[in-house]
Amino acid sequence: MDQETMSSPQPAAPTNILVVGTGAVGGYYGAQLAKAGARVSTTHRSDFATVQAHGIQIDGMQGPYHFQPAQVLQSVADYNGFPDYILVGLKVLEEIATADIIRPAVGPDTTILLLQNGVETEPPVAAAFPNNEILSGLAFVCLSRTAPGHIRHTCYGHLAIGRFPDGPSHAARQLAHLFETAGTPCSVTESIVLDRWKKLVWNAAFNPVSVLGQATTQEILAHPPTAQLVEQLMTEVCQIAAAAGYSLPADCVQKNLAATRKMKPYKTSMLLDYLAGRSMEVEAILGNALRAAQRHHVAAPHLENLYSLLSLLAQRTDATPATTG
Amino acid sequence: MDQETMSSPQPAAPTNILVVGTGAVGGYYGAQLAKAGARVSTTHRSDFATVQAHGIQIDGMQGPYHFQPAQVLQSVADYNGFPDYILVGLKVLEEIATADIIRPAVGPDTTILLLQNGVETEPPVAAAFPNNEILSGLAFVCLSRTAPGHIRHTCYGHLAIGRFPDGPSHAARQLAHLFETAGTPCSVTESIVLDRWKKLVWNAAFNPVSVLGQATTQEILAHPPTAQLVEQLMTEVCQIAAAAGYSLPADCVQKNLAATRKMKPYKTSMLLDYLAGRSMEVEAILGNALRAAQRHHVAAPHLENLYSLLSLLAQRTDATPATTG
Repeated sequence: MDQETMSSPQPAAPTNILVVGTGAVGGYYGAQLAKAGARVSTTHRSDFATVQAHGIQIDGMQGPYHFQPAQVLQSVADYNGFPDYILVGLKVLEEIATADIIRPAVGPDTTILLLQNGVETEPPVAAAFPNNEILSGLAFVCLSRTAPGHIRHTCYGHLAIGRFPDGPSHAARQLAHLFETAGTPCSVTESIVLDRWKKLVWNAAFNPVSVLGQATTQEILAHPPTAQLVEQLMTEVCQIAAAAGYSLPADCVQKNLAATRKMKPYKTSMLLDYLAGRSMEVEAILGNALRAAQRHHVAAPHLENLYSLLSLLAQRTDATPATTG
Repeated sequence: MDQETMSSPQPAAPTNILVVGTGAVGGYYGAQLAKAGARVSTTHRSDFATVQAHGIQIDGMQGPYHFQPAQVLQSVADYNGFPDYILVGLKVLEEIATADIIRPAVGPDTTILLLQNGVETEPPVAAAFPNNEILSGLAFVCLSRTAPGHIRHTCYGHLAIGRFPDGPSHAARQLAHLFETAGTPCSVTESIVLDRWKKLVWNAAFNPVSVLGQATTQEILAHPPTAQLVEQLMTEVCQIAAAAGYSLPADCVQKNLAATRKMKPYKTSMLLDYLAGRSMEVEAILGNALRAAQRHHVAAPHLENLYSLLSLLAQRTDATPATTG
């Protein structure tokens, strides 16, 4: 038997992937990669015991799916060996030092995929690992963590990934192939930073206004003063992006507004975070955009106002989860 | 005995005063006028039964004080006769038609005192009663309604009143005399509109930022981006006031900031309203200022931003009291 096994054609070794920050995004996309045959391990803080015992249950759009990670870890340092890919699903928050967290598992051939919100979040990681390939990715998906080890997937799911800062990438194509095998559309781009700015046009406008006004996208657009404010914010993001060398299409703002008008009333991820008492990604979404504006001498008074208010409010939510008092 | 009473010198007839909108402000200042010997009646919505049975209990800075109104009314139309003064303590909200509410008690010699927040709140009342004297007043006081028929007075209490739109007023002096008799400092001004703009400098800055940022005055000033925003908002109010013909002192903004830095951490009245699920006076405080800005072609981008967000948020609090969800 042993001999027979030895002599049969060897299957390609599975791709080893470590998900760091296994929230809804990390858990969902980790599960997709596992579905495609990758050997996917996960790290957890609060959900560790539940996932170790029961794995991750995904209440998906095409029915339930159970994901049993290869290794369920409390700490990145416990990972056995070096993975081919680290998929970073950590939030971008001041108190989270992404590079330090992933460092123990970054081997010489490890590719790092940052699946995070905002702009200009890659440079600190790229600087920490100058000899590793850094991929940056955008997830277009509606996910929520409904209980420890439980993720609900309600809409979309496609990805865009690409080498940071730009250019072609064999690693990105390999990863995209795995995602596509699992049924997750994944485009590979050679200008992921441009794509990030494009996504920020929507995020930097609707996220802050939804939190400060406690409103859905529909309510924001039905109230003429905030509909106008959203347009002004989007225009400022386009101006900053252009100054940073990433010119977005001229109709970008109007297309974003028109698409949002057609959407069902939607609570932004930042509003959901706020209502649940979780930290909001104010710096990744507004702070980094404003720092780019300053660097390129672009005026962004509306973004600045919203940043002022939201960063004040963030102190409050950090201090007192789930209440506003 | 009857004859002896008849022949003794007649005391001056007491001044008849009707308080309309007997919340904390109306109740407290009505009580002061009663203390000074005026015959003060009150109207109530939710507190009617309690006040009819027990009067109004004031937990004052100089000990408790019980105020038994002469007539306790559910409706202005139930008032017996016409009062010398109507003291309006109603909030300035779109759904409250002040002139219509007080009309049944406005006799030919009735003077109307508007003790309300904001700017440009007098014109609709002045237009509705062109033959009555309109007084406008500002209350510098910390009051809260702690239970039906119960008011707590925690700091300050002085008033500034004057004829609207300006000029000397015998009626204002008479009223001020009553307040002073009761121990409430009350200055009479011939330019109450200027005083309103002066007070708005603080109110239009700290009220909206405190609500949107869920913060005390101290927290707002300790966070550099919002400290700067407050200064920009105050500067815009000064520019609008000047364009409307009311030039405030050049050091007005810096004095307001310095005075606030010396205050204890303070929750603005608008923040208290928001946290209690009560309507916020967004139009009186921001909307009217912005309409004046438009009329006088003054740019006020920061006030506009805050108005946009706050008027969106106000829809939410109107709909769902005491929660943010």
